[in-house]
Amino acid sequence: MKIIVQKFGGTSVAGLERMKQVKAKVEKKLKKGYKVVVVLSAMAGETDRLIKLAMEFSKKPDPSEMDVLLTTGEQVSVALFSMLLKDAGIKARSLLGFQIPIHTDKAYGKARILDIDTEKLIELLKTNDVLVVAGFQGCDFQQNLTTLGRGGSDTSAVALAAALNAEICEIYTDVDGVYTTDPNVCSNARKLPKIAYDEMLEMASMGAKVLQIRSVEFAKKYNVPIHVRSTFSDEPGTLVVKEDEVMESVLVSGIAYDKDQARITLTEVYDEPGVAAAIFEPLAAHNIVVDMIVQNPSHEGRTDITFTVSRKEMDDAIKIIDRIKDEIGAKEVLYDKNVAKVSVIGVGMRNHSGVAAIAFRTLKSENINILMISTSEIKISCLIEEKYTELAVRTLHEAFGLDKEPQMESL
Amino acid sequence: MKIIVQKFGGTSVAGLERMKQVKAKVEKKLKKGYKVVVVLSAMAGETDRLIKLAMEFSKKPDPSEMDVLLTTGEQVSVALFSMLLKDAGIKARSLLGFQIPIHTDKAYGKARILDIDTEKLIELLKTNDVLVVAGFQGCDFQQNLTTLGRGGSDTSAVALAAALNAEICEIYTDVDGVYTTDPNVCSNARKLPKIAYDEMLEMASMGAKVLQIRSVEFAKKYNVPIHVRSTFSDEPGTLVVKEDEVMESVLVSGIAYDKDQARITLTEVYDEPGVAAAIFEPLAAHNIVVDMIVQNPSHEGRTDITFTVSRKEMDDAIKIIDRIKDEIGAKEVLYDKNVAKVSVIGVGMRNHSGVAAIAFRTLKSENINILMISTSEIKISCLIEEKYTELAVRTLHEAFGLDKEPQMESL
Repeated sequence: MKIIVQKFGGTSVAGLERMKQVKAKVEKKLKKGYKVVVVLSAMAGETDRLIKLAMEFSKKPDPSEMDVLLTTGEQVSVALFSMLLKDAGIKARSLLGFQIPIHTDKAYGKARILDIDTEKLIELLKTNDVLVVAGFQGCDFQQNLTTLGRGGSDTSAVALAAALNAEICEIYTDVDGVYTTDPNVCSNARKLPKIAYDEMLEMASMGAKVLQIRSVEFAKKYNVPIHVRSTFSDEPGTLVVKEDEVMESVLVSGIAYDKDQARITLTEVYDEPGVAAAIFEPLAAHNIVVDMIVQNPSHEGRTDITFTVSRKEMDDAIKIIDRIKDEIGAKEVLYDKNVAKVSVIGVGMRNHSGVAAIAFRTLKSENINILMISTSEIKISCLIEEKYTELAVRTLHEAFGLDKEPQMESL
Repeated sequence: MKIIVQKFGGTSVAGLERMKQVKAKVEKKLKKGYKVVVVLSAMAGETDRLIKLAMEFSKKPDPSEMDVLLTTGEQVSVALFSMLLKDAGIKARSLLGFQIPIHTDKAYGKARILDIDTEKLIELLKTNDVLVVAGFQGCDFQQNLTTLGRGGSDTSAVALAAALNAEICEIYTDVDGVYTTDPNVCSNARKLPKIAYDEMLEMASMGAKVLQIRSVEFAKKYNVPIHVRSTFSDEPGTLVVKEDEVMESVLVSGIAYDKDQARITLTEVYDEPGVAAAIFEPLAAHNIVVDMIVQNPSHEGRTDITFTVSRKEMDDAIKIIDRIKDEIGAKEVLYDKNVAKVSVIGVGMRNHSGVAAIAFRTLKSENINILMISTSEIKISCLIEEKYTELAVRTLHEAFGLDKEPQMESL
């Protein structure tokens, strides 16, 4: 049995005309002899409508009841789309998360998939050509409904593809693939034919708009090839695959940026064991995610510690820091919301030095000051003043030749 | 464990303010030490909105997918109401039909309840004070979602009350009880404190607005006392109970009328075995419900057969009759949409003759011609010209003294 999974997002199912386009995509695969598992999101705007409704009823809606409420969005999509398929004589039926079942933990609103029962799915695929599955939802082992968090339908699709050993998981969206950088910032951004899972993960800040992070982690873990492509064209999009399948092992695949950054500096804290823990443990306890961290060299037993958090969490972070300020001997707490992070990403840099040097030199050539640096095996990130973000992205994009078809490792 | 079931219809849950009133009704019972099972309908207008949406997608939407779609209506209600209760510190949770489960047959759109698993409910009532159950829905034994048909939430409530051996099933609605007749027609209609299940069933044509017929059949079968009352007042409504609990065994309880009647007459058909079957079997095969049937005395081997159907089905019925007309020797097919049925209802007439005579005399006194008559043990129905409907109802209401507090069997 040749199985393919196709996932369509909210804009792709917003109304009859859009759903007809989705139907055409499904029929194309049927003609090629595939059994198709279609995963649908709620119609665009529906989830937000339901959240707004809940907020009328409760300032802090109960998370489990919230999931009961939100799962109706995808339920409506799959029912309507199944009607459309059946009317066209296609053997199809809808399936809700609990009907498969897609078992998750009990973390309402951000549940993780634990287990998918494939037996029923395989049985249903014998008598049906298309199964229309509600994305974003599952249930715990007591049949309480759960949801997988924003963008969770991507994860549903990848998980189903993994469980069913599908040939590929196609993620249809309103963009036509993954680009070397944001085309809104850099007009000669180029669509990448292939990208490695790790690169896709690092491209999170742009990629979040294309794929839910967790779905990529899932795809990497189970080695599910993802094809990100447009609902509104027949052009191939971007394949997200294992590193060794990215044939042109290019040095740098893309430039990402993230303006949701705020910088906090604690000056002249005691340079002694336990100080970092004293700062970052209370932040973690309040679910504040710290991104970059830099500690300056010690001077007379004192040091400066700088870190970044998401902008909307900066005020909370400062409140927490103020409480522990004296304990760690901090002289001042400085902060800056006008910063942005620019990242150079590529699995190729695992085996090559010199990428960082090019990046720094490029930024310097435009007189862009680097406020912080953090690196991983496949990424170099620089914190800069926010106003230089677009300039930095364009300059780095050009410096690494991303506007041109990739050459073999050119360093 | 003292259990009470409370059912609230669409207008009672239409929005936050209404739901707060529902919450007050629930809290009142909690204070009295009850565990409360609340059954909710979809918010007013929601089911119609979903049906309209489906009709955009399909002229004849697949019934099983329709049920997947429609069950979202109640799902939204129970999630929102449970949020409200939990916010107020009440131990509560929502339950969908499949989670209980309420098992039904596979008749999508008009499924019948086969079985309710009380074990989980009882278990949940130990840790919760309120269970908020989605009405109108269930699932078959393969976990396919089903719905119970319009007004099905009444049946859900009665079935749950029966399964849980609840003290009473309260049906909250936007009217404050069952009246001796339609108060819009007869200004001195009186609210009945009690009514027997059979009377309630016969009052269908008015009662349909108050209680779903099937819920009354269910209540009768399992002897569940129903209290029909208003969400918007604290006045007692009408108790629907076993016949022998209707203390004042009155002769006549109410006058009902039904304008959804059309009369069809086949003149001079062969008066021989099989003719009635030849007429009514094809009608039944097309799901056309025939209400009254009258066959005139035979004359020279020929007879006239007259019957009534719902107005919207008259054209279809005539098409079917035209096909078999010659076979049964019918000379003419006559029809009339301007007819209505007026019924005198009361369990008291089981033991008393004379009620029919009073009814006929009363209609004659107003010069209202009786076109057809049909009787049951507890009902006398007369088909009359539609224009006399209100006059007939008012005159009969007065003739049987229904505007006054009931006297002991006064005939």
